[in-house]
Amino acid sequence: MELAAKACPFLRNSTPSALRSLSRKPAKTAMASNGLVHMAQQCPVMGKAMTVQARSAMNGCPVSARHFSASAAKAKPAKSPVLGFASAVSSNDLKASVQHELHKANPAPGAACPFKPAVPVSHVAPTAGKTFDYESVYEAELQKKRQDKSYRFFNNINRLAQQFPLAHTAKPEDEVTVWCSNDYLGMSKNPVVVETMKATLSKYGAGAGGTRNIAGNGAMHLALEEELASLHHKPAALVFSSCYVANDATLSTLARKLPNCVILSDAMNHASMIEGIKHSGVKKMIFRHNDTAHLEELLQTLDPSIPKIIAFETVYSMSGTIGKVDDICRLAKKYGAITFLDEVHAVGMYGPHGAGVAEHLDFTANLNRPQGSPIKTAMDQVDIISGTLGKAFGVVGGYIAGSAAFVDMIRSYAPGFIFTTSLPPAIVAGATASIQYLRNSPFERIGQQTNTHTLKAQLAALDIPVVPNPSHIVPVLVGDAEVCKAASDELLRSHGIYVQSINYPTVPRGEERLRITPTPDHTEEMMGHLVRSLENALGGRAGVVEGTADPAPIWTNAQLGISKEVLGGTKVVAGQTLEVHAGQASSAQL
Amino acid sequence: MELAAKACPFLRNSTPSALRSLSRKPAKTAMASNGLVHMAQQCPVMGKAMTVQARSAMNGCPVSARHFSASAAKAKPAKSPVLGFASAVSSNDLKASVQHELHKANPAPGAACPFKPAVPVSHVAPTAGKTFDYESVYEAELQKKRQDKSYRFFNNINRLAQQFPLAHTAKPEDEVTVWCSNDYLGMSKNPVVVETMKATLSKYGAGAGGTRNIAGNGAMHLALEEELASLHHKPAALVFSSCYVANDATLSTLARKLPNCVILSDAMNHASMIEGIKHSGVKKMIFRHNDTAHLEELLQTLDPSIPKIIAFETVYSMSGTIGKVDDICRLAKKYGAITFLDEVHAVGMYGPHGAGVAEHLDFTANLNRPQGSPIKTAMDQVDIISGTLGKAFGVVGGYIAGSAAFVDMIRSYAPGFIFTTSLPPAIVAGATASIQYLRNSPFERIGQQTNTHTLKAQLAALDIPVVPNPSHIVPVLVGDAEVCKAASDELLRSHGIYVQSINYPTVPRGEERLRITPTPDHTEEMMGHLVRSLENALGGRAGVVEGTADPAPIWTNAQLGISKEVLGGTKVVAGQTLEVHAGQASSAQL
Repeated sequence: MELAAKACPFLRNSTPSALRSLSRKPAKTAMASNGLVHMAQQCPVMGKAMTVQARSAMNGCPVSARHFSASAAKAKPAKSPVLGFASAVSSNDLKASVQHELHKANPAPGAACPFKPAVPVSHVAPTAGKTFDYESVYEAELQKKRQDKSYRFFNNINRLAQQFPLAHTAKPEDEVTVWCSNDYLGMSKNPVVVETMKATLSKYGAGAGGTRNIAGNGAMHLALEEELASLHHKPAALVFSSCYVANDATLSTLARKLPNCVILSDAMNHASMIEGIKHSGVKKMIFRHNDTAHLEELLQTLDPSIPKIIAFETVYSMSGTIGKVDDICRLAKKYGAITFLDEVHAVGMYGPHGAGVAEHLDFTANLNRPQGSPIKTAMDQVDIISGTLGKAFGVVGGYIAGSAAFVDMIRSYAPGFIFTTSLPPAIVAGATASIQYLRNSPFERIGQQTNTHTLKAQLAALDIPVVPNPSHIVPVLVGDAEVCKAASDELLRSHGIYVQSINYPTVPRGEERLRITPTPDHTEEMMGHLVRSLENALGGRAGVVEGTADPAPIWTNAQLGISKEVLGGTKVVAGQTLEVHAGQASSAQL
Repeated sequence: MELAAKACPFLRNSTPSALRSLSRKPAKTAMASNGLVHMAQQCPVMGKAMTVQARSAMNGCPVSARHFSASAAKAKPAKSPVLGFASAVSSNDLKASVQHELHKANPAPGAACPFKPAVPVSHVAPTAGKTFDYESVYEAELQKKRQDKSYRFFNNINRLAQQFPLAHTAKPEDEVTVWCSNDYLGMSKNPVVVETMKATLSKYGAGAGGTRNIAGNGAMHLALEEELASLHHKPAALVFSSCYVANDATLSTLARKLPNCVILSDAMNHASMIEGIKHSGVKKMIFRHNDTAHLEELLQTLDPSIPKIIAFETVYSMSGTIGKVDDICRLAKKYGAITFLDEVHAVGMYGPHGAGVAEHLDFTANLNRPQGSPIKTAMDQVDIISGTLGKAFGVVGGYIAGSAAFVDMIRSYAPGFIFTTSLPPAIVAGATASIQYLRNSPFERIGQQTNTHTLKAQLAALDIPVVPNPSHIVPVLVGDAEVCKAASDELLRSHGIYVQSINYPTVPRGEERLRITPTPDHTEEMMGHLVRSLENALGGRAGVVEGTADPAPIWTNAQLGISKEVLGGTKVVAGQTLEVHAGQASSAQL
């Protein structure tokens, strides 16, 4: 980033006190409000800019001129906007503040103020008084967050495995019902997962003790990757510290390796993908959320022969909308692109075996599909799938799945994979157990979706606005950071309910929401209490959802109903008795 | 990155078969070896370049011309270097190969070949035959790794908690002694850590279930951060998925927030710091490893008033050298910089309480230092410390510690912290237990250092070349990727010893090594077997270490001896009986 303060030797070599005293000095001409303005008028760049804005009283250089032009036009000559800003933020470090504002202003390259320094910089003797005030920048950045209400106070929530979905707060005796965890299926308290982890801890200890290349690669890591590859019917998979790292490392490494690559990215993609794309340094084109016509428009502008990556998600976490896997894969094929699909909020949750939305789209075809089957489903059209072990699978970590050579290339080149301690044996063993369990048990998925349907219907009956979507996310729109936080606080304090208020940067400003995620373990009673409490806490303060009618849920009633009809035995999910045989819940029966 | 293939419409719009047939066509002039060369001669950019290299038979555009110039000068006219390369890599995708080579060539901006396309790109109908061949790029990238012997085969190593430092390989009955883990102190099998994790799993389940902001922040996360802040005598600390993420996220976020920031980075800094610096986008200056004179030279060229971050490490993992904390902090103060110190390989290992090298430098002053004490030691001069929970602490995860406002700013702005599932309760509880244990027990540190001293002495006696250093790392220099891997394989296969061969990109090419890390649990017998086996496996094939005499170890004999003399009781470390009282090992006695 080019900064005017760096480019302008005058600003760079002046102490805050010199600037301040200059601004207090009377000007030598009638045109300037003070000595600082007079100096600026001598600058060949700034002087020109000031001539253009002839009557406005600007100080400094063209960048601040542009940045402050609106307010400056109204400013009284005696009160320079630069000094005004500085005194508002901090009285004793004008220069840091000015530089900070210049930084925000993000000047166009070349907008420099070519004052000549009196002495070459390398010969300037370091002086304590002239050094940078770091703490004031930290404070100013925090102040910005406080001012726009995006400063975050983390709630102290300790989810209790034995009383799921309850948690205790800072005081162990204060228990609340958690309604916003991404442990969607309660797998974090599943005894198969927990006992596997404990046994692994006893046998293999707490940590992996090294990177995958140096002492940190065990049979359990390999087994997890095999399990993941098989889950997605892909030749290979690779595990990372998190799916944030998986997305970042994979997209940046892949795009750098493909000469002349362009990434086409859904406007609502997760921060981890955005960072990965940024880090790749390649050209990015953003298509409007879920707008495949726009995506095709963009694809048409690109040379068919250059490599292109279309990056998108299945379940968009904060809205619950679902990516158009089929359409996007068709476009990819047509225009010679590959697809990178983030199934983070879908794995474990959709499809007959919990492989995600791509599997769900061909529910029946994937139901009894053996490994290596030549059947071609939506899942097979997707080139790269990324997923997490930390949400529906209930543990922690992330992964990618794709072709053998692709995965091996990422394994061989991605710094975020190579140079980090591998996940502990107990974590990978727990994750493997969780995946295996959910591949064979549809009950958690069905219970979760059933509860989602019920909750959405109950909220609709009370006119509480839920962002319409076909997935398991129940986003109650509030639309104001303060109101949203107040409602969340009220629910926690007075109703024993924990639903975090979601604010910027997780959602755009003005789209603040309470994002509710039912689990199969929330009872009818809990749900009734939640709905009444929400009505009470929001008290008409919820936002208004604009747009289309509620789309049909991706888990159809038929898909949900099958288990009840076909499977024997008994399992209570969300107060309903599902007739099932635990242990016999093979997908074949679905 | 500017690519010639993108800039050159001729290359962009030609099919591989068109290029190939053109190269087979006879040229129209005597100067050109074939039709492709003839075409290139018509290009205003390429034509000029070809005139300069008048007699060499080049094809394509100026970038490939430069790239292939050495071999091209010798090439027979009938065999174009472009086609030669293409047929060597893949016979049926010339174009992808050319583009790939162009990508590698990394042309200077502006080195474009301005042929005019016959049709505007946006109107070119997509054709299956013209799309990019992704798999061939993946394969070519892997082939490069195989060719230069940097392709990695992960060993299957399963470290056994009950038989530490033993592990089993792919076959559970094949046991080996691990000599290269970063679980330096064996804390991964420490019963306090393992039992804490098991109890936490039972109570709080497998995963955190959300980000720190949404349902994933518990009392244990806060306790860990308090413990870390207190360990380093800093006001605050923040935990990340790994120290890779901590370094990357912190350096990139911090530098972006400081207007006009410059980062001064030690030449041997870890990949995570290098990535963080790259991601920040700010100006970077690299100083020669541990060369404070060079660092000062660079600092002198910078304006004293701009913000600067000096990023360095204490223990450099692969060489075992130790950063000059005192000198660098002094320079930072003098030139108005802040210091970012990676203590990843030092935390748990150095200092009276395992806070790292910065604590170790003032061993006595820090010995009984209460929290909040006004004593100013090296540790207090460092602005930001990063560390890991995955090496000496034996678990997984990373962290930073620093001023309250600094930590809060990173917490509030770093995407790599905000948008990721937090570490599981059992992980953070285990890490906290490990830190607390090591703060009060010096025995593991002392045992480890004692074994390091002994091993270095035994290797020196046999003239096996160890890169000289004052730390706990024992790098046996081999200097050749193949020889190094063969020695590692031989040790594993024939001697029951696992020491991973370290190759590029973890160390520079030609500096391949066997990096040995003794633990307090390696016995005298194990060490004897290691030394004999190394002599056997290396058989005179080790490299030669140039340079200075072995520096004095940072853990002095006096510091190591104190525990033996002062503490009561008995503890056997590395075959030695240390007279200590387990449970009474308070630092006060040290």
